[in-house]
Amino acid sequence: MYNKINEETLNILRKILGEDSVITDSDDLEIYSKDYTENLSFFPEVIIKPENTIQVSEIMKLANGLSIPVVPRGGGTGLSGGALAIYGGICLSMERFNRITEIDKENFQVITEPGVITQVLQEECEKQGLYYPPDPSSKGSSFLGGNLAECSGGPRAVKYGVTKDYVLGLEFVTPTGEIINTGARVLKNVTGYNLTQLLIGSEGTLGIITKIIFKLIPLPKYKKLMLAAFNNIEDCARTVSKIFQAGITPSALELMENSAMKAAENQLGRKFPNSEAAAQLLIEVDGNYEESLFKDIEIIAEIVTENGSYDVILAEDNKKMDELWSLRRCIGEAVKSISEYKEEDTVVPRSKIPHLIKGVKEISARFGITTICYGHAGDGNVHVNILKDKLDDKSWESNLETAIKEIFELTVSLGGTISGEHGIGYSQKNYLPIALGKDEIMLMKNIKKTMDPNNIMNPGKIFMD
Amino acid sequence: MYNKINEETLNILRKILGEDSVITDSDDLEIYSKDYTENLSFFPEVIIKPENTIQVSEIMKLANGLSIPVVPRGGGTGLSGGALAIYGGICLSMERFNRITEIDKENFQVITEPGVITQVLQEECEKQGLYYPPDPSSKGSSFLGGNLAECSGGPRAVKYGVTKDYVLGLEFVTPTGEIINTGARVLKNVTGYNLTQLLIGSEGTLGIITKIIFKLIPLPKYKKLMLAAFNNIEDCARTVSKIFQAGITPSALELMENSAMKAAENQLGRKFPNSEAAAQLLIEVDGNYEESLFKDIEIIAEIVTENGSYDVILAEDNKKMDELWSLRRCIGEAVKSISEYKEEDTVVPRSKIPHLIKGVKEISARFGITTICYGHAGDGNVHVNILKDKLDDKSWESNLETAIKEIFELTVSLGGTISGEHGIGYSQKNYLPIALGKDEIMLMKNIKKTMDPNNIMNPGKIFMD
Repeated sequence: MYNKINEETLNILRKILGEDSVITDSDDLEIYSKDYTENLSFFPEVIIKPENTIQVSEIMKLANGLSIPVVPRGGGTGLSGGALAIYGGICLSMERFNRITEIDKENFQVITEPGVITQVLQEECEKQGLYYPPDPSSKGSSFLGGNLAECSGGPRAVKYGVTKDYVLGLEFVTPTGEIINTGARVLKNVTGYNLTQLLIGSEGTLGIITKIIFKLIPLPKYKKLMLAAFNNIEDCARTVSKIFQAGITPSALELMENSAMKAAENQLGRKFPNSEAAAQLLIEVDGNYEESLFKDIEIIAEIVTENGSYDVILAEDNKKMDELWSLRRCIGEAVKSISEYKEEDTVVPRSKIPHLIKGVKEISARFGITTICYGHAGDGNVHVNILKDKLDDKSWESNLETAIKEIFELTVSLGGTISGEHGIGYSQKNYLPIALGKDEIMLMKNIKKTMDPNNIMNPGKIFMD
Repeated sequence: MYNKINEETLNILRKILGEDSVITDSDDLEIYSKDYTENLSFFPEVIIKPENTIQVSEIMKLANGLSIPVVPRGGGTGLSGGALAIYGGICLSMERFNRITEIDKENFQVITEPGVITQVLQEECEKQGLYYPPDPSSKGSSFLGGNLAECSGGPRAVKYGVTKDYVLGLEFVTPTGEIINTGARVLKNVTGYNLTQLLIGSEGTLGIITKIIFKLIPLPKYKKLMLAAFNNIEDCARTVSKIFQAGITPSALELMENSAMKAAENQLGRKFPNSEAAAQLLIEVDGNYEESLFKDIEIIAEIVTENGSYDVILAEDNKKMDELWSLRRCIGEAVKSISEYKEEDTVVPRSKIPHLIKGVKEISARFGITTICYGHAGDGNVHVNILKDKLDDKSWESNLETAIKEIFELTVSLGGTISGEHGIGYSQKNYLPIALGKDEIMLMKNIKKTMDPNNIMNPGKIFMD
């Protein structure tokens, strides 16, 4: 179905990119065979590192003509196998697209290449009093291009939205090598179809993003962080939607069950306050007026107490805030180090979180698997980590897929869907029909085919073959 | 190219929809031949009024099979001719899709049919303490479906974003009659391509929206409105971006030049404060804490004064606020009643507004046309009304197109684009190549062709034939 890369092709690649940018060393191929998704590994045949859009365009024309798969790769921190070379071919690393082109302070915009690390962009913006809110856990190493490909979220999405909400325009290269510019440096735009949003969340299957125009917002002057402990997870989950009903939109509202906290504590060697709680909510508010935040905090403290929290703690300074956030942020990694695992990225309307968690626990009990739930409860995004733990290999293998299927069916029945911010990629594609009907999938595949007639652009992702 | 509607087709339509829902009366056809776009009129051959999605699907299958154009129509308030039956065929009025299906107070969501009037939805939500921010000037008669088709904005977009930012999911019928569901009742979603955003802003050319899932936000408890008068429009325009640089995001920031104010005053028979000002800024802030708003106001008053405002007025109560807003809101209509006109919907980065306005005035002087500028300066969206006024017919006809072309070229050179919230539709399609390159247009047309192989869905819009 696809052609293999031969010496002749490698030579053309070297001619386009230079010797140093075409890598076939087996150690490198191994590194680029993985991302952060479980234990998956697929070797590309070659890694290339273009440094400008013209090169990317030439590569795509070449690969399209030769029917060679091209898999774009950012920081390699993806959680659904989106950057893996399922069918071999070219791993196109965007690591040399690492320049922030312009920070436009007057218009609250930044123009950047996609190989810039998320946190680097954030920090550069913050120096100027500008705020780029999306903050996936992997922000210290994820690339912005990957954030766009997977429409990353993170804790702040509850107030500030996800990656897609900050993109005003793009330059991207189509699978057939055309260079396309979408959007403009404006906040409103109805000039032709919204190609920007078609690319975002398309997981590298429709084109290679080579330039991004982000909008920014003013950096809020103050932040407050509180932690509310509950004796049972149902009360904790039920409290989430009550906070919003009081008219308050926290800048983060995270839920962690006890086993998630324990994993983080073991990893970092220090404890959460109320470490024994069945579950806790980590609640952040931000804004320009500190006294308004204190009022918000008071209201929130009342609500959580009314709803069963037995202790509420306010982080007294920035250091305490950072300590709590670092514990929270390491949960993902910590949970995965416990045993073989599979991570799901369910999302439901926030009032349905209690139903989701209850259902997940029922399903895990029935199949004898361990689940750890935590995540961005404020926006209904609950990460369900399924652990093999002490389960024997045979039961794990025979039960896992059915258990996931049941969890996803439950999620969809609650008005939710199967991925909030990790994407479908390779690891979830078999479950896509739980969330989408055949006409929806057919329409998406038709759009894919229109843009990528030879199916060379990150094949084997999102859709079943 | 298209088939005409004959008696046999009418009978099938009557069978699908019932006698009363298939209208060929010439008075009705005349009404439906127009929208709010200048003096354009194109007669459909028949008006139909389906009341459910199955009917819409059957209609599309029929029309697709017979190669008959279908033009979806909402409130008929469009400003780019999007709802006009350029090639005759079926005018598919969505007026019977007028039910709000569910207001979900717990999750800040509303599910609605697209034939609901924008303001009706807003008011129903506000009764529950929920806020649907997008508020196009036409909100008293525009349909939500039309708002989606054109990605409507309005004054509040500067803080709250445009229509697209509130849509979580859709049901729509494709040109070939498939019923497609997009999105879910969730705030984060990366489960397949973003078909929701592909449909929004597609101006009725990719499908007929039959159901909308909106997200809502908490209704802010307080609002303050101020008016700042300037002796010259350049100072006024230059002040816009200074306000944001102080870290404040107003909930509206409108600019009006003197002639725009005068038109509104004549229409409503009452005057703006500082009615003689060369230009004014109307600035609204909102939030949950009144004292914070007073602080914002103080800062804003300082900034506008420093930048040349000779008088700043704070609306002392809700009545005064409504009076100012009603004057502002009637400008669009008022300006158009002066003479034959053409309205443009330019949008630029907000710091470029002074350059845009200066350029527009130079171009108008050169071509002997009158222009009136006003609009949503906070998000860079300036409506440029070009008036024939006292110009002779010949000069008007020979100069208009070139003048518009120059205005659009200027807009694009400033990093902007040719439509912020009105759409390209019929009236602007000849100018699309100023904003988009041929590869971009080809890609859009290919997507259109994939979804609408017989080009029956609102043909003659957005793209030149």
